[in-house]
Amino acid sequence: MLTPLNPLRTIAELKELRTLTSTHEGAQRVAWTETWDRARAWMRDKLATLPVEVRLDEAGNLWATLPGASPRALIIGSHIDSVPNGGWLDGALGLVAGLEVLRTIAARGTPPVTIRLVDWADEEGRFGYSLLGSSAASGTLRPEHLLTLHDRNGITLPAMLTGYGVDVEQMGQAGGELIDAAAYLELHIEQGPVLETQGLPLATVTGTCGVERYKVIWHGQAAHSGSTPMNQRRDALAGAAKLTLALREIAHEVGDGAVCTSGSVVCSPGIATSVAENVVQMVDMRHHDSIKLARLLNRAQRASWQFAAEEHLNVTWERIYQIAPITFHPQLIELAEAAVIDTCGVYYHMTSGPLHDATEMARSGIPTVMLFVQSLRGISHSYAEDTREEHLELAVRALANLTDRVIEWLEQGGE
Amino acid sequence: MLTPLNPLRTIAELKELRTLTSTHEGAQRVAWTETWDRARAWMRDKLATLPVEVRLDEAGNLWATLPGASPRALIIGSHIDSVPNGGWLDGALGLVAGLEVLRTIAARGTPPVTIRLVDWADEEGRFGYSLLGSSAASGTLRPEHLLTLHDRNGITLPAMLTGYGVDVEQMGQAGGELIDAAAYLELHIEQGPVLETQGLPLATVTGTCGVERYKVIWHGQAAHSGSTPMNQRRDALAGAAKLTLALREIAHEVGDGAVCTSGSVVCSPGIATSVAENVVQMVDMRHHDSIKLARLLNRAQRASWQFAAEEHLNVTWERIYQIAPITFHPQLIELAEAAVIDTCGVYYHMTSGPLHDATEMARSGIPTVMLFVQSLRGISHSYAEDTREEHLELAVRALANLTDRVIEWLEQGGE
Repeated sequence: MLTPLNPLRTIAELKELRTLTSTHEGAQRVAWTETWDRARAWMRDKLATLPVEVRLDEAGNLWATLPGASPRALIIGSHIDSVPNGGWLDGALGLVAGLEVLRTIAARGTPPVTIRLVDWADEEGRFGYSLLGSSAASGTLRPEHLLTLHDRNGITLPAMLTGYGVDVEQMGQAGGELIDAAAYLELHIEQGPVLETQGLPLATVTGTCGVERYKVIWHGQAAHSGSTPMNQRRDALAGAAKLTLALREIAHEVGDGAVCTSGSVVCSPGIATSVAENVVQMVDMRHHDSIKLARLLNRAQRASWQFAAEEHLNVTWERIYQIAPITFHPQLIELAEAAVIDTCGVYYHMTSGPLHDATEMARSGIPTVMLFVQSLRGISHSYAEDTREEHLELAVRALANLTDRVIEWLEQGGE
Repeated sequence: MLTPLNPLRTIAELKELRTLTSTHEGAQRVAWTETWDRARAWMRDKLATLPVEVRLDEAGNLWATLPGASPRALIIGSHIDSVPNGGWLDGALGLVAGLEVLRTIAARGTPPVTIRLVDWADEEGRFGYSLLGSSAASGTLRPEHLLTLHDRNGITLPAMLTGYGVDVEQMGQAGGELIDAAAYLELHIEQGPVLETQGLPLATVTGTCGVERYKVIWHGQAAHSGSTPMNQRRDALAGAAKLTLALREIAHEVGDGAVCTSGSVVCSPGIATSVAENVVQMVDMRHHDSIKLARLLNRAQRASWQFAAEEHLNVTWERIYQIAPITFHPQLIELAEAAVIDTCGVYYHMTSGPLHDATEMARSGIPTVMLFVQSLRGISHSYAEDTREEHLELAVRALANLTDRVIEWLEQGGE
């Protein structure tokens, strides 16, 4: 009995999940919480009607496996966890659409290759470590970096994960799940305004940007706001303000999609009656081209040194996070492009600024590609996150189309 | 038996107080704490050897009164409270020097006018309301503004003051202390770098600057740092950065001692992966000339509206605090000038950027003047606050000299 692809069911299921796991402030599927457990139990109920084996790996990732004629596995992945007060689609869309695709493939009988659906654990990084489950599987995670992480309530990551049967020291064994991995596909909302601006529903994602993320620490001298003449100040905020504005010029100069952001500035002592002595500024720079990413960092640092000299400040840069640009698999990009054209008649290529679990899969050498569907107003990580329903339908169709193409490619020995 | 003025005793007593009330992080004489109680008990012990009446008023101010031939009173005032991790001289110098002056006057027998020493309560504004005790006495304090104030630990101001027998609703009755007030003198460290830069020990303070203090609230749009092109951002921090830098140009343009400070910028959501949606920026502007103060505010607001338009932001200004410039009494300024010349041979006039309890006395119509002594490196509100001992000696001598001159002026019917 064939089960035709039913994208409307995906939309209905996403709404069901939203009802089950959201408040009026948005999705609350934060990893390692009761609401996340409820979301995963809901997903397991859906999977229970399919001829799939379901298991948790050593990192807490949830796998559903439909055995095929070959053990070589096509993996469709995403994450059901959300940020606090998150959106209904970020992560959930890819997983619920993958469920629908899995259903139609299962209904056809044993597939030529093994098909797996994975719900990565804690993609959003509740403890500040994003892509937790997928980086455990890919082997890039270092357990020693996790031991002291804690959430806003002081709960440590290892203590929380132990309650879920996950041992931080053993998480890397999740890599065993990838032994037969032959391709990895992920559908996600864009989380940016580009497709809406272009008037396009879908895009092929050709890779993810590299990231250089730093704390820039400015040191000046506290001084009374009333008694210190303007020309005798060493105002740490002046350095941060200059860099905030310079980052935009630097991004413009380097161009080709460069983005630079200062999303946080914290002043000490941080009161009206004192010039800021210390300012800690977060700087996040991204580019799909590693040379240009290095150029962004270099120019920003040189600018900061110049500003420090002008303002009689000291400045230091502390790296928080770094990842190289990743380019997805060229043949899978072609297949994704064909799937997008089949689905909506036009194609568009873009690089993802945000990282995704797909980044970890690509880094570990698995042929990988992603699809993006348009986000309204570019808003994500918010209850206001949304996508037109006709675009969600197209997204499910494109993922199904791409999956069929990749199965065929794998049958023909693609790798 | 005459007691000659002994400025070295003042320095020794200041060190005694420091030992009694400081940690290695600085002075801890925060108002309404056990350490403050200890400082005041120490001061009461010193006063106990003098023929003075000591009492607390309804606002918690500590008064020592040496009755004179006339009830008209010359008041020497300052504050023994400090900020947390404060300096040893801010406030304490004026009070301990006043004690020494009171000693020498008391030793001469009944003075022609009444001499009073006042330790104002909570000058530093533990609950965010500076000049608390002196503004209660001057009548500018509005009890309804105090009811909801709380400190960092959530303790409310009314609850804390009740423990000290101070009823917020009745604090204004402290104004009764000023009925016979005929002159007010205050010695303070400069808390700025001007006198050190000029190579001068002392200055006559001719008034205090007016203050315009605002929260400037910038509203933009949160957007992912990775997926939002630079030209599609509404970055609230860009507005705050532009204003931070523009404030310096505006202070320079208006000139004549203008100071503008942005001492705090708080970003929301305040994370590396999001463009700032909201920024709350503190802006503090000061000038001794009310027209120029209004010009500072007007230009800063116009600049912010321009930046909001450029950056597609909304900006609102919420007033936190405002006080007009105060000019001290012209004849007392002349007497202070003569006292400074007597003491160190050169004179210098300056306006105080910081507010002092003297501001409240001048506002209430009492003839008022202040003396400043040099601060090293302009540092205050810090354990590193310091003044050369030879300058402290000169400061005590200048206050004594000024007091004698003002007594004579009052005897001659000065008002």
